[in-house]
Amino acid sequence: MRRVEIAGYGQTPFGRADERSLIDLAADASEQALRASTVRPDEVEALFLGTFVGLALGGQAFPAAVLAARLGLGGIPALAVEGACASGSLAFRQAVAAVRSGAVDVALVAGAEKMSGHTTATVTRTLAAANDTASESHAAGLTFPGFFALLARRYLHEYGVDRELLADVSVKARANGAANPKAHFQTPVTRAAALAGRTVADPLGLYDCSPISDGAAALLVTSADWAAAHGIEQPVDVRAVGQAGGPVSPERLESFVGLPAAAAAARSALAEARLEIGDVDVAEVHDCFTIAEWIALEDLGAFGRGEAAHATADGATRVGGALPVNPSGGLLSKGHPIGATGVAQLVELVRQLRDEADNQVERAEIGLAHNVGGTGGVAVVTVLGRAA
Amino acid sequence: MRRVEIAGYGQTPFGRADERSLIDLAADASEQALRASTVRPDEVEALFLGTFVGLALGGQAFPAAVLAARLGLGGIPALAVEGACASGSLAFRQAVAAVRSGAVDVALVAGAEKMSGHTTATVTRTLAAANDTASESHAAGLTFPGFFALLARRYLHEYGVDRELLADVSVKARANGAANPKAHFQTPVTRAAALAGRTVADPLGLYDCSPISDGAAALLVTSADWAAAHGIEQPVDVRAVGQAGGPVSPERLESFVGLPAAAAAARSALAEARLEIGDVDVAEVHDCFTIAEWIALEDLGAFGRGEAAHATADGATRVGGALPVNPSGGLLSKGHPIGATGVAQLVELVRQLRDEADNQVERAEIGLAHNVGGTGGVAVVTVLGRAA
Repeated sequence: MRRVEIAGYGQTPFGRADERSLIDLAADASEQALRASTVRPDEVEALFLGTFVGLALGGQAFPAAVLAARLGLGGIPALAVEGACASGSLAFRQAVAAVRSGAVDVALVAGAEKMSGHTTATVTRTLAAANDTASESHAAGLTFPGFFALLARRYLHEYGVDRELLADVSVKARANGAANPKAHFQTPVTRAAALAGRTVADPLGLYDCSPISDGAAALLVTSADWAAAHGIEQPVDVRAVGQAGGPVSPERLESFVGLPAAAAAARSALAEARLEIGDVDVAEVHDCFTIAEWIALEDLGAFGRGEAAHATADGATRVGGALPVNPSGGLLSKGHPIGATGVAQLVELVRQLRDEADNQVERAEIGLAHNVGGTGGVAVVTVLGRAA
Repeated sequence: MRRVEIAGYGQTPFGRADERSLIDLAADASEQALRASTVRPDEVEALFLGTFVGLALGGQAFPAAVLAARLGLGGIPALAVEGACASGSLAFRQAVAAVRSGAVDVALVAGAEKMSGHTTATVTRTLAAANDTASESHAAGLTFPGFFALLARRYLHEYGVDRELLADVSVKARANGAANPKAHFQTPVTRAAALAGRTVADPLGLYDCSPISDGAAALLVTSADWAAAHGIEQPVDVRAVGQAGGPVSPERLESFVGLPAAAAAARSALAEARLEIGDVDVAEVHDCFTIAEWIALEDLGAFGRGEAAHATADGATRVGGALPVNPSGGLLSKGHPIGATGVAQLVELVRQLRDEADNQVERAEIGLAHNVGGTGGVAVVTVLGRAA
């Protein structure tokens, strides 16, 4: 199988994009990726688009073909990939497979979501369908804030952690986001303010929850040989993309302080990359809620069970710490336009591995992204490395 | 690249499935495919699900993970693929790529849609989003019946064809469907009755339109080596899967009597299979409307422009004719549960190539499927062959 690299990236600002459609956003990110690289549009051989609620909230079915047409990519194969909040990473994984297999040399990956313009209740209800809708918890009306509140309660109880420590995740996310001009929230928050946010689903407050965002991100994926032959500057190596599945409703989880799909995807990706978690210099993890960051870091094996809370409080996950986590601001501060999220995580890692990041981690050689869908029904862990 | 085969198939009845969910249907078809083959569930390494409006009409987001869980497939990689009415074929194409590349030996492909339980107006409006929703035609309210009515008007005008000849497509479809116990419509229709159907979008009447159906279909895709090593009986060869894109709104079509993506996908698939259209013994084409069957056959090169109408009238496309088309009943009679359609076309071809079909084409060696999404924004042409 061939070596695969990332040859370019683009991202729109995340936040409210009242005047722009799903396709406008995806096209903007894609055009940025093309402009910022030496890949020409007529060299792109396939398009993979990650989007989740493009029709239900964004009003556009069949977005991959519409995007390909908008970009003037001719009649290349285009398709949309869906796996809830991991849709973007899954689109990337399909592109990597297409390039690895030799089917194509150059693929464009875009992730996009248009979520604003609806009430929070409508968005929350729509997203709640990323769950087995025949399950008891769905029938009982459990939403994602509610699900993660259950995980938080269990975590705090099981490890005797003070609820106030969750605020440290939010404070770090907002501090990082404040330096990211494309983040949804660009204002820092104090610990006191984070703790004073109104309750969303007890014990989670407003600052424990990622916002409803519009946005898109894009990557150009090429074979290493093609990149070398075409003089691509600063390519980033795709070392591994692990995917695993898990329970699709809360009542099927054996534990509320870990998501088995994330742990399995991490093992798979690290084994394929022949690395250990300690080799990772910077990580973007799926912090849709503050509690999710702790569980992510423990599923990855970066910290022991119950230890991520204290590691966060101690600053281990800040830029400059032992393992900088979500220097982009993460979903909490950068925002969470669902289909874009997995792709945007990789955009941040590429920037880190090219020394172009807003919150640059010094001498970052290996980056890891962790992207989860549903109640852990799918997880994708991607390992990128600075090109030799 | 490795040779790929189809090792098993399953299909639910198409029609109204009031009591069954999208997942119930997809699981039923998948379990049939597993039961009818010697592939064990724990040998399935990846799941590809084609579905289009699973959330908007079927009420289930994230269906691939939910289906994998329902089937007890463990934590295998699962994802949903969307490309409007070609979603099923695109899922199949991704599975074939995964097996060809060596990433997996065994993949399960399912296609499913749950569409009933809504008004016809809701369904028609939802499907109309499989179009550039920023286009003028969309803004003007053009639906798919309206679009295909425009194609029909143009075809009849350009080639001086009598509108009554469209009924021959419907009469053939219903005759074939009458012998297919899984078809939505299992009653033949006379030419007079077909012509007397109430107008849907002039010149298309009720019998010119495929129905709103629920249903699912599934295929097991394996490498040829794996199939041989595991004693798979009567595998069917995947000779080629061609995909191409095209205009995503009617105003961008250069001609209203051909869809360039379909012609390009056919050229690609036939070239890859090293065959000509004359080598095809049986075809399943995307007859979402009667007019679409003529245009499909001409895009494929099976008949010259303007000739498919007369060839149909002459019986060339009946079982026993020069090129039997839609012996399953096609979308018009078998039904069109959108995500299932492309997979069900292949199920019919597999049955033909294993001498198991309801309307068996004698000595069928090569089968071709033609599946189109939107206004020709995507097309997939698949060539299957009887195993040596």
